[in-house]
Amino acid sequence: MEVGEIKILVLITYDVNTQTAAGRKRLRQVAKQCVNYGQRVQNSVFECVLDAAKFREVQHKLEKIIDVEKDSLRFYLLGNNYKNKVEHIGAKASFDVEDTLII
Amino acid sequence: MEVGEIKILVLITYDVNTQTAAGRKRLRQVAKQCVNYGQRVQNSVFECVLDAAKFREVQHKLEKIIDVEKDSLRFYLLGNNYKNKVEHIGAKASFDVEDTLII
Repeated sequence: MEVGEIKILVLITYDVNTQTAAGRKRLRQVAKQCVNYGQRVQNSVFECVLDAAKFREVQHKLEKIIDVEKDSLRFYLLGNNYKNKVEHIGAKASFDVEDTLII
Repeated sequence: MEVGEIKILVLITYDVNTQTAAGRKRLRQVAKQCVNYGQRVQNSVFECVLDAAKFREVQHKLEKIIDVEKDSLRFYLLGNNYKNKVEHIGAKASFDVEDTLII
């Protein structure tokens, strides 16, 4: 691995306002983009292992989709040594892209 | 500050299955507990600055509320130097306890 390709765990969480059809479309688009970058672990939570370029790329793509007045996007940077920084209790996620279409 | 009182940022995210009235009650209870420990930043995402004892306490309380077969709880440990590990785009959260009652 070359310098500059260090990958970190980025947690992406989002709230998209789905009161309108346009909002529901944004929600689907956000989920669909996130699927390209990582693993869906909860309905609006994705864990993505990304280098700096990919992180900027997904931020940029999501920023273009959301309505910044109505929707919220958050990114949490968990570093490259993240194995012990995540704890889970309960049911495991079992989402697929189709699931996002019926929210 | 004494040793042992170091506080870290713990991100709590949850998915509670709300297909039943019992599920909706669990969702309200989870949100209500989380409010006691931190700041709601998205609908199902709380940022909590906790010492080790409080972290174990909230984990234990939430574990007792959820249905481990149906619901998912995740905890992300962002350490005590977390200011630069969180990025936000879009609308800021404006939740209160009442909001959780109408989900």
